[in-house]
This record gives sequence, C-alpha cells and structure tokens, in this order.
Amino acid sequence: MIEMKEWDGFEGRLWKEEINVRQFIQDNYTPYDGDESFLADPTDATNKLWDALQKLQKEERAKGGVLDMETEVVTGITAYGPGYIDESLKDLEQIVGLQTDKPLKRAFMPYGGIKMAVQAAETYGYNVSDKLKEIFTKYHKTHNTAVFDAYTPEMMKVRHAKILTGLPDTYGRGRIVGDYRRVALYGLDYLIEEKKKDKANCGCGQMTDDVIRLREEIAEQIKCLEDMKKLAEIYGYDISRPATNAKEAVQWLYFGYLAAIKTQNGAAMSVGRVSTFLDIYIKRDMDKGILTEQEAQELIDHFTMKLRMVKFARIPSYNQLFSGDPVWATLDVAGTGVDGRSMVTKTDFRFLHTLENMGPAPEPNLTVFYSSKLPQTFKDYAARISIETSSIQYENDDAMKPVWGDDYAICCCVSATQTGKEMQFFGARANLAKCLLYAINGGVDEKSGEQVGPNYAPITAEYLDYDEVMAKYDKMMDWLVDIYVNTLNLIQYMHDKYYYEAAELALMDTDLKRTFATGIAGFSHVIDSLSAIKYAKVKVVRDESGLAKDFEIEGEFPKYGNDDDRADEIGVWLLKTFMDKLKKHHTYRDSEPTTSILTITSNVVYGKATGAMPDGRKAGEPLSPGANPSYGAEQNGLLASLNSLTKLPYEWALDGISNTQTINPGALGNNEGERIDNLVNVMDGYFDQGAHHLNVNVFGKEKLIDAMEHPEKEEYANFTIRVSGYAVKFIDLTREQQLDVISRTCHERM
Amino acid sequence: MIEMKEWDGFEGRLWKEEINVRQFIQDNYTPYDGDESFLADPTDATNKLWDALQKLQKEERAKGGVLDMETEVVTGITAYGPGYIDESLKDLEQIVGLQTDKPLKRAFMPYGGIKMAVQAAETYGYNVSDKLKEIFTKYHKTHNTAVFDAYTPEMMKVRHAKILTGLPDTYGRGRIVGDYRRVALYGLDYLIEEKKKDKANCGCGQMTDDVIRLREEIAEQIKCLEDMKKLAEIYGYDISRPATNAKEAVQWLYFGYLAAIKTQNGAAMSVGRVSTFLDIYIKRDMDKGILTEQEAQELIDHFTMKLRMVKFARIPSYNQLFSGDPVWATLDVAGTGVDGRSMVTKTDFRFLHTLENMGPAPEPNLTVFYSSKLPQTFKDYAARISIETSSIQYENDDAMKPVWGDDYAICCCVSATQTGKEMQFFGARANLAKCLLYAINGGVDEKSGEQVGPNYAPITAEYLDYDEVMAKYDKMMDWLVDIYVNTLNLIQYMHDKYYYEAAELALMDTDLKRTFATGIAGFSHVIDSLSAIKYAKVKVVRDESGLAKDFEIEGEFPKYGNDDDRADEIGVWLLKTFMDKLKKHHTYRDSEPTTSILTITSNVVYGKATGAMPDGRKAGEPLSPGANPSYGAEQNGLLASLNSLTKLPYEWALDGISNTQTINPGALGNNEGERIDNLVNVMDGYFDQGAHHLNVNVFGKEKLIDAMEHPEKEEYANFTIRVSGYAVKFIDLTREQQLDVISRTCHERM
Repeated sequence: MIEMKEWDGFEGRLWKEEINVRQFIQDNYTPYDGDESFLADPTDATNKLWDALQKLQKEERAKGGVLDMETEVVTGITAYGPGYIDESLKDLEQIVGLQTDKPLKRAFMPYGGIKMAVQAAETYGYNVSDKLKEIFTKYHKTHNTAVFDAYTPEMMKVRHAKILTGLPDTYGRGRIVGDYRRVALYGLDYLIEEKKKDKANCGCGQMTDDVIRLREEIAEQIKCLEDMKKLAEIYGYDISRPATNAKEAVQWLYFGYLAAIKTQNGAAMSVGRVSTFLDIYIKRDMDKGILTEQEAQELIDHFTMKLRMVKFARIPSYNQLFSGDPVWATLDVAGTGVDGRSMVTKTDFRFLHTLENMGPAPEPNLTVFYSSKLPQTFKDYAARISIETSSIQYENDDAMKPVWGDDYAICCCVSATQTGKEMQFFGARANLAKCLLYAINGGVDEKSGEQVGPNYAPITAEYLDYDEVMAKYDKMMDWLVDIYVNTLNLIQYMHDKYYYEAAELALMDTDLKRTFATGIAGFSHVIDSLSAIKYAKVKVVRDESGLAKDFEIEGEFPKYGNDDDRADEIGVWLLKTFMDKLKKHHTYRDSEPTTSILTITSNVVYGKATGAMPDGRKAGEPLSPGANPSYGAEQNGLLASLNSLTKLPYEWALDGISNTQTINPGALGNNEGERIDNLVNVMDGYFDQGAHHLNVNVFGKEKLIDAMEHPEKEEYANFTIRVSGYAVKFIDLTREQQLDVISRTCHERM
Repeated sequence: MIEMKEWDGFEGRLWKEEINVRQFIQDNYTPYDGDESFLADPTDATNKLWDALQKLQKEERAKGGVLDMETEVVTGITAYGPGYIDESLKDLEQIVGLQTDKPLKRAFMPYGGIKMAVQAAETYGYNVSDKLKEIFTKYHKTHNTAVFDAYTPEMMKVRHAKILTGLPDTYGRGRIVGDYRRVALYGLDYLIEEKKKDKANCGCGQMTDDVIRLREEIAEQIKCLEDMKKLAEIYGYDISRPATNAKEAVQWLYFGYLAAIKTQNGAAMSVGRVSTFLDIYIKRDMDKGILTEQEAQELIDHFTMKLRMVKFARIPSYNQLFSGDPVWATLDVAGTGVDGRSMVTKTDFRFLHTLENMGPAPEPNLTVFYSSKLPQTFKDYAARISIETSSIQYENDDAMKPVWGDDYAICCCVSATQTGKEMQFFGARANLAKCLLYAINGGVDEKSGEQVGPNYAPITAEYLDYDEVMAKYDKMMDWLVDIYVNTLNLIQYMHDKYYYEAAELALMDTDLKRTFATGIAGFSHVIDSLSAIKYAKVKVVRDESGLAKDFEIEGEFPKYGNDDDRADEIGVWLLKTFMDKLKKHHTYRDSEPTTSILTITSNVVYGKATGAMPDGRKAGEPLSPGANPSYGAEQNGLLASLNSLTKLPYEWALDGISNTQTINPGALGNNEGERIDNLVNVMDGYFDQGAHHLNVNVFGKEKLIDAMEHPEKEEYANFTIRVSGYAVKFIDLTREQQLDVISRTCHERM
C-alpha cells in the first residue's frame, strides 16, 4: 500500500493498493439529502467570463457556425501554448486550458480522415496548408483511407443506400470515457508506473498478434501520460503528483479530459461521472476552512464553462446527422451506490446549478442517474431545473446498476460503460424499417431501384400476408446483421490501427471490457407496419418495375405507444430477434454485442432515405427518433406512451433505449410546485417500471414556432431543448430539423 | 482464356488462364547444351557506360563509401524524375531507371526507422531536412519505433548481449522476391485486374482480423501497381500492356524490380530467376531476325550494370555485420525442370558472361542452380568463370527442387523461395555458441557478467561432464528459442504494420506461403566444444565471481570438418534439436519455421561478442562462418571437409547451409583445363551427396595479403571474393575483416 501526502484525510485502503477510484469514492463521499438553498450565485469572475464567452458564441453563430479554424498545426496534446477565454480576463479563470490556442478555434484533426478534415475547413472558408495535406496523404495514412481500402463493394452499397448509417469511418468513433478522475487522485507519475507494470505483465511471453498489439498500445498510452504532464506545465501546473485541494482536483481532472479532446474528435467525448468524486475534495477543503461555497461553485461553473466550449471541425453531412454541433460532453450526476446509499452530494446540486448560474446550455450533456429512491430534495430540484431549462436527461439507475455497478458513466448520449474499465466499439445503426422494405422488394432499394440486398424472391401478392412478410423479413435481417457486424469489425480494426485513443485509454484499465455497440433505426415504424399487416389489410402499390413504392391500409390496427400489447409485443420481438442475430457473429477483439434504440437527430436523414412504410408513414418523412412512438401514433397520453416503452427489456438493449417527451407546462400543473410534483411522480412511475431513459422537455409548440420565426429574440439565444440523446440550442437547428421537432408529439395531457 | 497480341508466337494455355509464369517458361523455353563460343563481346556503348560507372564507383570509394545522399525527398516509386548513369551518354542506355535522380545516390528511406535513416545520412556528412525528421517522428511512426515500443525488457537484453543478432528491427526485413517477370509477361493492367479479383474474393464475408489485414494489403498492392505504370511513364514507357520484345521484356522486368528497391531497403533485395524467362523473348526476337547476339548481350550487360548500382544508406553497425555494402541482388541461373530438362539457356551463359564483359563484381549475387546433370558445357563454363572471378556461388538444384519445384529463386544469400508464391519472415540468427556458455554459467553473460538468460543453476564442477552439459544446454536452448521466436513474431507484425512490402507483394500471389526464417550462429564451435567435453577433458577456468571465462582442454578430440562421424553427428543432433524446438512455437501468420546455418560476414561481430569456448576458440575471435568448420579444424583436406557438410540434411535447414571454400589455384591443377575439370568433379561429388551450397574462391593467401597491403593496385579495383552467402570487393572490407578472410583455411590440397 502506498501513501501520499496529498491523500491526507482520506479514508480506505484498497484504492491505495491499486488504481480504484470507485473504492475511493465509496470510502470517502458524504451523501447530501438537504435542499438547494445552500447554493451560491455566480461570482463576478464567472459573470465576466461567461459574458465574454457568450460574445464569442454570438460571433461564432454570426460567422456561420465556426469562429476560427486551424490550418497549420496538427492537433496533439502539446501542440499549442496556453490559451484563455479572454487574455485580459485570464487571471479570473479558475480552471484553465483550451483545445487550441484560442477560444472556440477548432483544431486540425486529420487522423480520422484527411479528406474530412480538409473538407471541414473548406466548408467554412479555411484552407489547410499544403504541407499538412501532403503529410496525411503521402506519408501518413488515415483511418478513413484505410477503411475504404478494405471495404467490400457490398459494404459501399449498403452505406450508400443508407440502410447502414452513421458509421464512424471518417472521424473518431468516440464513446470512450477516460477515467479523468485518476489524474487528480493519483497524479501522473503513479499512473505511468502502473502502466509500465501492466506492460511488463502483458502476455506470458508468447507473442501472438493480440499481445503485440496491446504492448504497443500501452507504449502509446505511456507517451500520452508523459505528454499530459507537459500539457499541464504549459499552463504552469505540475500534475505528476496528485491534486492537493479541490481547485487542483478539478483542474487535474480537466487536464485529463483536455488531452482527450485535443487528440480525438469522436462522435461523443463524454466527461463521465465526476460530481461525487469532486465533492470529496470540496468537502475536505471546506472542512479545513480553506474553501467557501461561492468558491466551490465558481470551480464547478468555470469547469462547466470549459465543457461548454468543446468544439470539433465537422463536415456538412455530419451536421445533418447530428444537428446543432454536439460533442456529447456527457456529465453524469446522482445515482445510488450498490450499498444502497444515495450518491447525491452537494456537488451534484452544484452541477445542475450551473444551468441557473450561466443559463441553459446543451453541453455538458447533463444526465441524472435517476431512482425513485433518490432524496426527494434532489428529485425536486432536478425537476425544477428540467422545467426551467429543458436541458437535463434522466436515466434509470435502478436498471443500470445491476449491470454496470455504481461507477458507470454515460459514454455518449445514453449508453453506460463502467468508468475506466470498459470501452465501446461504436457503430451507429441499422435501418430496420428499410430492411422491411428490402424484404418486401427482394433486396432492391425502394429509393434507387438498385439491387443492394441479396436477390431473394420479392413479395408479389397484392395484399401483404403477415407470415410471408415475417419469413422474408427474418432472412433479410440475417443478411443485414451479417454485413453490419462485418462492416463494424473492419472499421474498429482500422480505428485501432490508425486512430487509437491512447490519451483516453491511458486513463483506463489495461485489461478492458469492450462492447460492440450497434443500433436500430426505424423501430416504431417496423412495429406499426407489422401490426398493420397483421391486424388490418395492407395493399401494395407497385411501380411499373414491380417495386413496392407505397402502401394502402384498409382498417384499423394497434400502434406502438398506446400501452397496447398487440403492438408492443412486436417491438419486444423485434429487439430480441435483432440481438439474437447479432450474437451469432464474430465481433472484433471478442467484444460483447449490444444494441440501442436511439437515433439522435439522425431520424430526419434516415427518414429521407427510407421509402413509404406499411404503417402509413410516407416516403422521405422523418423516422420517429430513438424508441419513440411514431408521430401521431400516441393517442392515449403520456403515461400510456411511457408504458409501451417500459415493456422493452433494458437487458436486451444495453446500449440504451432513448425516449424524448415534450410536455406542455400546463399539462404538468398550474404552478411550479404542482409541476415539480407531477414530473417527479411521472418519472418515479416510469423508471420504477424499468424504463431506461427519458429526455424531458417542458414547453409548448407555440414557443418553438415563435423561436423558429424570431431567432433574434434575446430570450431564445440559449433556448435549449432535449432531442434524442442530447440537448441542442433550438436556433442552431436547420429549419427542416426545427419543423421535425415541432411536428413531434407535445403531450397536452398526462 | 485471354489472348494478347504481345504473346504472338508463345505456346501453352494455362499461363493464359491464370498468372503462371512458371508454366509460360516450361511451355516456351529452349534448353541450350552447346558451349560458350556464341557469346559476344561488350559493345562500345557497354564499354562507355561501364567506364562511366566505374569512375563513379571510384569517386564513391574516395568519398568514404557514399557518393551522394538524399536529404529532402522521401523515397517512393514515383518520387523522382528520370535519372541516368551519365546524362551525356543516356541514349546509350538500353535499360533505364535509377533508384533516385542520380547514379549511386542513396535514397532517404525512413519507414524502417527514422533514427537509422538520419544516422545513415549523418555518418556520411548529410543532414536530413527538419521537415522530414518531423514527419517521421511526430506524425508517422516507423517500424523501428514500433518494435521498440513493444519489446520486452528481456528482448532488449538478449539483443544487447548479442545472443540474438541481426534482427531486422531498424530496416527492411527483405528476402521477398517479387515476380518481376509478371510485369513483362502480363503488363500492369492485367495484373491490376487480377489483384482486384483477389480482393473481391478475399474472405467469405466474415471480417476477422486476418481478412481485414489482407484486404488492406491488397489495396496497397494495387496502388503500387498503379504507381509502377507512372514510374515507367517517367522514363517514356507504357507498361500497362505486356512487353512486345526482348528489350521491353528486360526493361519491364527491371521496372518491377526498380519499384521494389525504391520502396524497400531490406537486407536482401533479390532479383530472382529471370534468365530462362528472358531467353524466351530473346530467342523469339532472334528467330524473327530483329535481334543480334551482340544486341542481346548488350541488354543483359546493361540490365546487369543497373543491378551493380543498387545502393542503400546504411549505418556503421549494419556495415560491421554485413561487410562491403551488399544488397543481395541475387540473380539465379541454370537448374533443371521437374520434367528433367535442363533449364540452361543461352541467356544463362549471357548472365555469367557479364563477369567477363564488365569484369568481376559482387552484385548481382550470381547463383548457379547446380546439378551434375547440367550440360557439361555449362558446368565447364561456370567453373571457368569461378576460377577467373571468384564471383559465383553454387546451390544444389537436386536438393532444392523436390522442396520448391523448378521455379524457386534465392531470396537473399542462399535461401530458396517459390517465385511469386512465397515470402520469408526473415530474422537473422541465434548464437548457439553463446547459448552453450549460458548453459554453463546459469544464464549469466560471459562478457558482461549480467544475468541475461534465466537464472538456472550453473555448472560448478572443475571438469565439464558431458551429460550435465547436455541437460543444461537443452534447457537453455529452450529458453533461447522461445524468446527468439517471440522476438521475431513481434518484429514481423510491426514490419507488416509499418513497412509492408506492397510493391514486391503486388507482383506475387495474394494467397502466399510464408516461411519463418531463423538462423544459427556458432555452429562449428558448439560441435567441437561438445566433442571436446565428450572425448577429451575440459577444465573450466573461472574468475573470482565463479564465471567460466576460459577452458583448458586435456587430450585430443574429433572436430567437425574432417569426415569424422563422432563430431559430425553432434552437428546433426544440434540442427535437429534446434528445429524441433522452433516447431513447438506459435509463429506469426502461421508461417512455417525454417532455419539456416549461415552467418554471412557477421561471424566477426558475433565472435567479438562471444567468450572463450570449450573447443579452444579464444574469447572475441571470429566464429567460423555459416556451416564452415572452425578455422584450423580441417585436417583432412577439402573433400573430407565437404563430406562433413553433406551429413547435414537440407530438409532440416531449408533456409540454407552455407559453405565457403577457398582453393589455391595450384591445388586444382596445373592448367586451366585441369582446374576446370577438377572443380566440376568436386562439385558433382559434393552436390550429389546432397550438400546445399558452395562458395568457390580460387586464389592463394598471398594474393589476399598483397591486396590488403596494396589496395591501390589497378588489378585489385574489382577483385571480388565470395564470403558466406554473397560476394564482396576485397578492398571494401575493413582490415579486421580482411584479416579474418586471410585466416580462413585455404585448401592447398584436395
């Protein structure tokens, strides 16, 4: 067991014997079940810095979405000298560190794909230097080039037809949460020593490919840890030793995260579960009398401000998929321990309080690990902030804890991973709605008329027969899952080879658990279509070539989202069938296949690429997002809709089941107290039934329409809404996306 | 079956159905059993160009071994515009193409290791540009960095102690012979189409790591084939189509080889078995009356001149191992077909004749595939050239043919691989002499006193007991083979990852056979030491720490190299034991383990690193090279020595058993005719017994001593000798190496 003077006052043994932040937290945190009255207002420094940052954000929006871009320097942990929000205010910054040398300036990140990096710059009028272009085309191959080198023609086809979408083949795969807390608790020197020991113990001598790969990876991780020390030095800090106080703890942790966002542009760069951990440092300082509540809040505010600044250079097609420039800097609060104690601390309040001190914001993607057993005071406070800001999402701690323990964190929108012990091989999603059309059309794409899937016999009957459709759908799903898994195997292999996340993985256990995270799009439309075929009559409208282009439905049929088992059971069947098919396959690095029902904002793009469905959805219309019922399908109010969702076992979709609901304030109650009580009651009931996730928006359609028409109004500058899996500033959406949001069901009654 | 107009007059079907150069040769070549009287003298153009090149070679020697080096351009197939031996004579060059833009200028080849590339330049006073240094340290990792990232501390130790040596961890592994003939026979467009088909058929859909890796490799190969077309265009040729005549055939083939030596600096960049192939084109042109003998010889002379110009930038430690700047541009002639026909053609004579037309030279490393059944005329001619130039090596076609068929080629010094179908994972050698000392000293290095091997109990008895030594040697060899194989697994993995030989492998079958080529050093010293322990008495002289530092031998014992089974059987046992231990291990890419008894000139460096042996060899003295008996051990003349060698089964050392012999001209006979007859008789007898290899030097010690003392004499400018596995200009050796050569046995009697 080692002892460090920085640990003075901390309890416990195991976390001193080994790297074990979870044990440190359990041994040292102080649950808080009081209310929010202790919270402090923003300091002058916070206000000044936040004003400065808002001014920059306005400039950024005025410039078309990008304030500045790098064209000469390749990103890297130590690629830049120090940078500040505002040079003249830099002494006010409690927590320092930028991704580049200037605020909101986007780094040049070529490793995921040089074409993407160059195109991203050119989209905003920047020209990457010829020298850099030469390096990353002639001398250093990038992930994107390698993936396309290895793709099969069939993979190119399914990608082009958008039956597989959101594949991370042009940018970082993301979804890895480094355990940034380790930097604060242990300091870099200790972490480096432990990694060196891991390398010494890597493999028993027999050099198989797996062992060789891992040995090289550990070597790269150690280089990153050394670089993180240099990064801190650039800002005047020595992080070779553990943090000695709360300010250092926040700063050390942030340096770890900063190394990640300087080296990777993953589609999700989550921060993790840090509140309870940081609370231990804050409480120690307060007990010593060296920190006030106002100072503590200032640390959390300034740290949060930095998380609001994370930016990556993206191409237009990426922005279409993921509207509003999100980075998924997901930060989690609350939850309960495996010993039953609430893990809510004062610092969990402090993080939610940033939405008051600095107003609503989409990032960090604040996530509450919810349980009806959380302190009532915290549930009420979170509900109040939800109602005021629509900036929080909730995930079911009681559902996740049995699977992931009590130190998991959300690695992207809604997917849990054990902090420091697990990573995801992320791979977006399969469009199962389109797959149903392929089953009907014998593998011919309903949009292009091209043979994309296998040339199985199409359905030729005038009316669709349920048994025939199901038999053909089963075979077509076999094909789709097969090519999906193999495409992801290839992408993940190349990502490890060309764009390995050394900085993040340096702060995680060497012997990692890996999940193979697939996803489903078009969930509700498959259910409703199959229900229509089963319970009504569906006539096929074919074009001259015999291709089914539209469907006429005769009669009524039950729809998913109304607590009607006839429809909901089809959803359960669909999820289980998809998972069973996944499990049959070889997955890269023996990862564990999981899936999600989660489309983010990409439901609009997916819908565009998908023909008319037998449920009555017209060609090109957006799919319903995530696990949401189809637009207009919900006829029985919010609770019935939530009940349908809760029938989907979380164990079968461990990557997450996303549900976004918008409630009119009036439907929740006539005054704030009533609204808070009702929202808490809804969530208690919903999550007690085992549902996984809920995005809560509290506003009426009319506010959305007004914001769309008058984005210049001051009140809408930071107007944030929850979409599927993250939050976004409404005025940053395209009009098309805004219209999609407006067309979603807004519950006027419970 | 395809037909191309360039194939007009060629016979056969199968080679038109698939890429199959061997079948083309068998269907079309014309054996020649006449004598050398048809051969033509050099043309004026040849004399002028050769004079110009010799002048450059002289300048190169005067400048310390390097004429010019690149510091600004990274090597690549299309990195340079056209280059010529002499701009003013460029119209005389029948076969064009240089590695860089100037003759004998060495390219900058960083992919094997940037440190090595920079050091090689600095050794000769050149400074690599900062830009290139930055690219290959900050952005693009090189093979060398990756290998050292993954090495274990134990691997570093055995490497440092030189019990494992010559590991290709700082430069290309080499030993891959692209089937350059394919360029001439099929043209690039067809080869590209076939590779595309291979890619389409690579894997049955399941994307395992192996399949993904191979798919990416094929993609890289196709890019190289496209680049080869551009390379030819730079020199004004279109190689997308097959060669239409002999000149094009030689030129097309050379472009293929040029792509290899522009992209790789392997320790062996062999040319392959091309003579019989080219003869088909030459004969077709002659039959048409469009080519004269003089023109044909000129093509071969000019091609050979280009092969004499191949150069790489090397570091001093490399030069110490491999003296005289060799590249192993090995080119093979003769042999017999599986159908029993001699494969000797007129062009086989023409290649040997280059040693007359342009004098002796170490490169290309001319290798005769020998059989007593070759035409007497050819055997006589080869023997005459050997006697005159000491520039030829011989390998036993009767031994190799059953293993490799009749289209194998030598991929380095003496190792056979099937052309276009097989590559080697090369990995130099284990010092088994030093391993014996480790067995005696319990893993402690006899030079440094450090614990390098496992800490087994050392031998403490005053006199060495044979059974005890054998038991301990067996265990220590287990350890050495284990770490040897694993070190090579790691090196080969990284070489594929960071320095893949796309250009060479593009001209080979996609589904390759791979051998895992290990090697043995100190062979004779282990045999003689064990013999001394068994048949005489060996007293151990220990230092104050108990380390065995020297040995005193009491009594006589049989030595390897005298046709005495008592000693020779130990050699057979040693080889079999080493191979059996190798076979137990996992080898990278399921390659087939082989071994060689072959030290090249590295016997001097190995000897320096090896303490005194129980056979009486003193500490630091050179080991005997390859499978040669120890210096001074041979007491019964040349034939007895050769008999000892022939007891080693080639099947157990498929990577080759090298034997270098020097015979005083007087010992061979009193006149040229007698000498030729005697040499042919010796070789017939030697190879008929199954021996694998023979380097033939014909000169006396006094000539060596005179050349060492008077290197300035004109007669020694191109004085070439065969060392273990290649040839070298004697005056290019260091004095230490010259002394070693002089001290080797020069047989004064048969």
